[in-house]
Amino acid sequence: MLIGAVEAGGTKFVCGIGNEAGEVLDRVSFPTEQPEKTLGRVIDYFRDKNVSAIGIGSFGPINIDVNSPEYGYVTTTPKPGWGNYPVLPELKRAFDVPFGWDTDVNAAALGEATWGVAKGLDSCLYYTIGTGVGVGVYIEDKLTHGLVHPEGGHVLTRHYPGETFAGVCPYHGDCLEGVAAGPAIEARWGVKASELPADHQAWEIEAFYIGQAIASAVLLVSPKRVILGGGVMHQMQLFPLIREQVRRNLNGYVSASALAEGIDQYIVPPGLGDNAGLCGSLALGLRALRG
Amino acid sequence: MLIGAVEAGGTKFVCGIGNEAGEVLDRVSFPTEQPEKTLGRVIDYFRDKNVSAIGIGSFGPINIDVNSPEYGYVTTTPKPGWGNYPVLPELKRAFDVPFGWDTDVNAAALGEATWGVAKGLDSCLYYTIGTGVGVGVYIEDKLTHGLVHPEGGHVLTRHYPGETFAGVCPYHGDCLEGVAAGPAIEARWGVKASELPADHQAWEIEAFYIGQAIASAVLLVSPKRVILGGGVMHQMQLFPLIREQVRRNLNGYVSASALAEGIDQYIVPPGLGDNAGLCGSLALGLRALRG
Repeated sequence: MLIGAVEAGGTKFVCGIGNEAGEVLDRVSFPTEQPEKTLGRVIDYFRDKNVSAIGIGSFGPINIDVNSPEYGYVTTTPKPGWGNYPVLPELKRAFDVPFGWDTDVNAAALGEATWGVAKGLDSCLYYTIGTGVGVGVYIEDKLTHGLVHPEGGHVLTRHYPGETFAGVCPYHGDCLEGVAAGPAIEARWGVKASELPADHQAWEIEAFYIGQAIASAVLLVSPKRVILGGGVMHQMQLFPLIREQVRRNLNGYVSASALAEGIDQYIVPPGLGDNAGLCGSLALGLRALRG
Repeated sequence: MLIGAVEAGGTKFVCGIGNEAGEVLDRVSFPTEQPEKTLGRVIDYFRDKNVSAIGIGSFGPINIDVNSPEYGYVTTTPKPGWGNYPVLPELKRAFDVPFGWDTDVNAAALGEATWGVAKGLDSCLYYTIGTGVGVGVYIEDKLTHGLVHPEGGHVLTRHYPGETFAGVCPYHGDCLEGVAAGPAIEARWGVKASELPADHQAWEIEAFYIGQAIASAVLLVSPKRVILGGGVMHQMQLFPLIREQVRRNLNGYVSASALAEGIDQYIVPPGLGDNAGLCGSLALGLRALRG
């Protein structure tokens, strides 16, 4: 049985085919252009693939309320042409199969819980820290939807001591995304994050912010694992620094071995590597098929 | 059909009987003493009540992992005699009925979602702000457990501008509980919170902290309603101040009418009033019965 997967990003779309074991058997990628053209390429790709279901993890914000007339729409994105666009309805018109539809980060969280580093666990958080910060929330074996959907990249954190950088988030200035996403690092230091040396003070500050946000998230929803992906997290020196910040902020209050001697296995990189996004969409498709 | 309910607090226990409509038909209350004596009184109360199930919402921290050998224990509480005590196992030995077991705040969240101000919604957060701060988390029709259980009263918030108060949390100093619970207000101003006039600056500062924590929680898990209970929230002037802080912190980023013109119905007092705790335990019992 073949499942289709669409990783619908704001910069590029990735389409692929996979199976129930989470194996990706084929994939293509193309730039995100106008929605008609882009979705046309998605439809062309799947036309002869004979998939039993299709899962889509999308950039957002999106409507994931199945009772809404706008279910399946990309909503208030500033991306030209995509605002209030019926992505899922367009694809449903082309293929009569079950569809899974969720945010890209929720998809990634589900993928990791199905085949990756959170396999077998009934909860995890998936942070992507790159051009923006997003958080996928998987709790009690379900993806969290709620009022809209999680937007945990915009939580407020305390400033690093002495820090005067005002942040770059157009809504909040110095929310987590505003101080810790790639563009924030570049604005703060005047060079691309990837060009900063591994021992630069930038990483200590970065870990301060990320660790603080994770500590508060651990307190609020008590996830069984926290997965950190995205371009910024390719800086592997961040992991021990972030774990230390989480430990410092919790200060022994939550009594769990995962947060003490087990923290190296608790705050971890994605297990699915470069296929994390596509596998997440695959997992959404599989879940849609199984109902 | 009758359901038993136990509101197991650190100061007092409330036991009661109710029905499937959430009506409390009988209740008694007694101080929390040594566990053997206190649980003895619970057992005596229910002995002739012929209940079909019993729900317990307990002070914590507690073990709510059904796969753990310590499931049903109160764990690392400093309360004399109660540390690592098998509360649920003791009660199970006395009554051969299904038992529900969760934190007091999770119980309250479930009660509100079943019969109260979040009735019919599949998610809500329940904050109690009193001698401590606790947060019950109900998401996608399930109470959140995870690694341990939510402890959202201890999240970190930014200081109120110019604030130098160090907070009173023994673990974190100035976490939310450390600056916003009743004892913090008393330590900060030198009088009991209940004695401060309604127009005192204390309430603006209080709303600043609570509103900030709620804004971050709304971003992370997108609840469909936020319920604020506990002694401090008897200060009704706090509600408009808190709503304003939430709106300011979100700054229009999350597009939902509930967070704009609907915010008066979004951040609200408990619908079950003084029976909120007991009704929550009743709901736990009912859920245990229905499996």
